[in-house]
Amino acid sequence: MANQVGTLYGVGIGTGDPELITLKGLRILQRSPVVTFPAGVGNQQGTAEAIVASYLRAEQIRVSITFPYTQDEAVLSEAWQAGAAQVWHYLSQGQDVVFVSEGDVSFYSTFTYLAQTLQRQHSEVKVETIPGICSPLAAAAALGIPLTIRHQKLAILPALYTVSELETALRWAEVVVLMKVSSVYPQVWKILEQHQLLGRSYVVERATSQHQKIHSDLINCPTLELPYFSILIIHVEA
Amino acid sequence: MANQVGTLYGVGIGTGDPELITLKGLRILQRSPVVTFPAGVGNQQGTAEAIVASYLRAEQIRVSITFPYTQDEAVLSEAWQAGAAQVWHYLSQGQDVVFVSEGDVSFYSTFTYLAQTLQRQHSEVKVETIPGICSPLAAAAALGIPLTIRHQKLAILPALYTVSELETALRWAEVVVLMKVSSVYPQVWKILEQHQLLGRSYVVERATSQHQKIHSDLINCPTLELPYFSILIIHVEA
Repeated sequence: MANQVGTLYGVGIGTGDPELITLKGLRILQRSPVVTFPAGVGNQQGTAEAIVASYLRAEQIRVSITFPYTQDEAVLSEAWQAGAAQVWHYLSQGQDVVFVSEGDVSFYSTFTYLAQTLQRQHSEVKVETIPGICSPLAAAAALGIPLTIRHQKLAILPALYTVSELETALRWAEVVVLMKVSSVYPQVWKILEQHQLLGRSYVVERATSQHQKIHSDLINCPTLELPYFSILIIHVEA
Repeated sequence: MANQVGTLYGVGIGTGDPELITLKGLRILQRSPVVTFPAGVGNQQGTAEAIVASYLRAEQIRVSITFPYTQDEAVLSEAWQAGAAQVWHYLSQGQDVVFVSEGDVSFYSTFTYLAQTLQRQHSEVKVETIPGICSPLAAAAALGIPLTIRHQKLAILPALYTVSELETALRWAEVVVLMKVSSVYPQVWKILEQHQLLGRSYVVERATSQHQKIHSDLINCPTLELPYFSILIIHVEA
């Protein structure tokens, strides 16, 4: 009889503070023989691995998976297949594998591509996702300002969008969140200035981590040097 | 010298599975002498209290706060003031108070009104929020389908909205979430039918709780008897 195939667990670990993992996420993480993470840049430890490092035991196998920062479909597809093969190596031997992901695993997460690639190649693979604290909620908690209340509609835009998409969001929603805003910040700043929204907008870098930084005086910040994990929250409604 | 005023902590406890509280939320909850919850309907235990009941010690003071289900501003304002007075009773004696909230405390949460009412009356009150798993992420995890990937824009609508707001969201976003959909489900169903989106829409009742129920065959469900905590996810994009 063949080995039973292991289960792939995607565990969202929150945005930086190791205490923001859920009890369920921690339980699944600690009982799993194999733990995988997105690889860090260069030879550095990745962010997700750093967040959970203190929870891991020496005997747990750690595997880094490289997800290149590119829009090139061919390069991405190759990387996901290589990552799926790394994970399948353990699953096929009957071992469970946990993939830990910053934030939540269903919300703009690399976990999706890994899981989908694996299931296309090996339809017998079972996948379970354990939700985590996503960055808009972490940033709101850091600011001490509610993200949304009552009748407010919320629009969330990922890193890639056009000016007209942002303009539509500002007309439609009472609260607008821009994920990973670093690369487009100067253009966004101009739009917020035109709409007189700079006084109701906030940037949070690396929410809940030791390096968290809040920018609440955007009127004086037409440019900002921001890290990759930076988020902008606009309360369109006063 | 007067007592130092206690701190009010808002702790998001997730959507039903007690294991979805964060380590930080549990630590703050267990060390706090006073724990408050939204009151249940009638004399029943409220949902939030039920979720965390197993984590509480007998010596912790439990306080239920009544938040009426109404849009009447005067009734609501009176309830928030009464709740703020209940909490202030302990804070003013130097005791910390935790308010636990289903889902996340910054995301359409009653915690906001309680905290804001308190701070208007007693500006010295310190408030700290510990984020929790919100229902869109819990529902996505339950479905085993990512909420958003890559370039997808996300629109979230609370319970109250007009048909035209929903139509705009369906044009603008690749993923649309309707919170607390029970009261408007039949109207929403007709719009989804017109847009041929029923096959890409899912309803999740009480995500992650013991009573979780998934409806993924909406084409055959023009009406549904849904509980208050029901959410509808529409993947507009195939």
